[in-house]
Amino acid sequence: MGEFDLIERYFKHPAGRAVLGVGDDCALLQPAPGTQLAISCDMLVEGRHFLSTTDPFRLGHKALAVNLSDLAACGARPLAFTLALALPRADDAWLAPFSQGLFALAGAHDCELVGGDTTQGPLNICITVFGEVPVLAGRSQALLRSGARAGDDLYVSGTLGDARLALEVFRGTLSVPAPIFDAARLRLEQPTPRVALGLALRGIATAAIDVSDGLLGDLGHVLQQSGVGATVDADIAADLVAARTGYPEACGPADTAILPAQWRSWALAGGDDYELLFTAPPAARSAVATAARTSQTPVTRIGRIDQAPGLRLVDGQGQAVPDSYTSFDHFR
Amino acid sequence: MGEFDLIERYFKHPAGRAVLGVGDDCALLQPAPGTQLAISCDMLVEGRHFLSTTDPFRLGHKALAVNLSDLAACGARPLAFTLALALPRADDAWLAPFSQGLFALAGAHDCELVGGDTTQGPLNICITVFGEVPVLAGRSQALLRSGARAGDDLYVSGTLGDARLALEVFRGTLSVPAPIFDAARLRLEQPTPRVALGLALRGIATAAIDVSDGLLGDLGHVLQQSGVGATVDADIAADLVAARTGYPEACGPADTAILPAQWRSWALAGGDDYELLFTAPPAARSAVATAARTSQTPVTRIGRIDQAPGLRLVDGQGQAVPDSYTSFDHFR
Repeated sequence: MGEFDLIERYFKHPAGRAVLGVGDDCALLQPAPGTQLAISCDMLVEGRHFLSTTDPFRLGHKALAVNLSDLAACGARPLAFTLALALPRADDAWLAPFSQGLFALAGAHDCELVGGDTTQGPLNICITVFGEVPVLAGRSQALLRSGARAGDDLYVSGTLGDARLALEVFRGTLSVPAPIFDAARLRLEQPTPRVALGLALRGIATAAIDVSDGLLGDLGHVLQQSGVGATVDADIAADLVAARTGYPEACGPADTAILPAQWRSWALAGGDDYELLFTAPPAARSAVATAARTSQTPVTRIGRIDQAPGLRLVDGQGQAVPDSYTSFDHFR
Repeated sequence: MGEFDLIERYFKHPAGRAVLGVGDDCALLQPAPGTQLAISCDMLVEGRHFLSTTDPFRLGHKALAVNLSDLAACGARPLAFTLALALPRADDAWLAPFSQGLFALAGAHDCELVGGDTTQGPLNICITVFGEVPVLAGRSQALLRSGARAGDDLYVSGTLGDARLALEVFRGTLSVPAPIFDAARLRLEQPTPRVALGLALRGIATAAIDVSDGLLGDLGHVLQQSGVGATVDADIAADLVAARTGYPEACGPADTAILPAQWRSWALAGGDDYELLFTAPPAARSAVATAARTSQTPVTRIGRIDQAPGLRLVDGQGQAVPDSYTSFDHFR
């Protein structure tokens, strides 16, 4: 199978929203009048972002999901994406499920493939995604990292740390019961981009970011760009690890028990969560609750934004918790 | 150096045209009213698209140039681009010249970096580029592959085949005098995207494509999408190999002489030329000449579009030349 056959067979879908889709030198998009185009780009490398054994259907899903998560954090409605794919070989047994996973998620978000590139090389998946953000009365409705204000509440969507727990099992540093591993693995391999929540938070949230490198690291970007500090309840965060609910503390031999500090660590610095971390003033609490309900996305208040710079971690009793959590860095 | 330092040091330029550039979850672009956004994406893999020894300055140039070439083929004005970069390690000695080469070309085309991703992995450079195409009286001014009509003239810009000649020298299948190699190597490693010509051809050319996989292969896309055939003068094309001008037929030992069929082959199926191949009706000949002059880009008429499907190669005497040229395919 050659390059053009491969594109024809797996990646050529008829253009819907785009003026021109796959098959010319460029795709053509015509954004609606009075909108801005939100653009984000993520590259996934085998061995770094996923294991070589990852189910290709899930990988197709994840490659787009991590990009849609950036649109969600911006409050943008997905429109289209390009896909560049380096593959060791043109392999039907991989390409068929990969493209199915990709298009299943794309279809669910009405986000169409408009172009890209395929080449031979070490497995690398690079997606650039395009979304639409309205401009109302001259003001962009995009959610930025820079809008957090002292006194704002700090929220996170969904669950935290399960992807990291699954990664640790793959790494062999941890063993957990199979049903817990399977659920955590699904969070690692097939994350849910919080697109509907991002849209519902437009005009409500003051700042937002998606949690990809670990909650505290990503919060750090918001604090830095907003010029504020924050206090985070580490125990509330630790309770957001889905695997912890009903986790048999005494399962297996004693050395496989998971200590409270470990749950905290996964929740605060796990990575690969693809949840939304966002801020909103206390006066908007009922609006946030409504946004969570209409988008069918659980949201938890985990702290507050402070005037004083820096990050303070507290436990359930308000006592300081030492912060020794570092964010994921792709070059460390 | 970590991932964020790397972005800060080499890739964070202040946003100019973009509403929001590097540093948030998404970049924000606001296309001018009445325009379409042209989007293209190219991935360059070490060992496949460039040698590991390629000068990083030239590579930074080329990675963007091949994308700008797609905008040129569409008649789009460059606006912005995203860069995703997988690197084996964060290496200043490579990143500094790479980013210089990239930004030198970006600056020359007023095309700004608005976002991207960096990660550890086998060297891979993925750029997605955005350009603007006006819509006049409800009609997109984009140059497409599908507009060629029987009777149209067929043109190509610049020179052909020199990149392939340089590649053959690198592969060790050929030896040429040093000045000829140096000039050819520059065409391979630092191609010139024909952006000004593409803009000048709006409203004149009926179809266009950029020549990246070899002239005949890329012409095949135009013929297929336009539902036409073509006749190409192989000898005119062969004369477009710049190295041929004044090439000492008898230089070096006899077995290094280059036969006429070889020049034809490089011109017609060399690859990596990044010239524009386009069609225009004979009535537009003076308009094409003006477009070439105003864009300071040489243009040569190399054939014509026929009603009859298929591709016919002829020599300078109009005699049929057998076509045994195949296009470059990244999976062959």
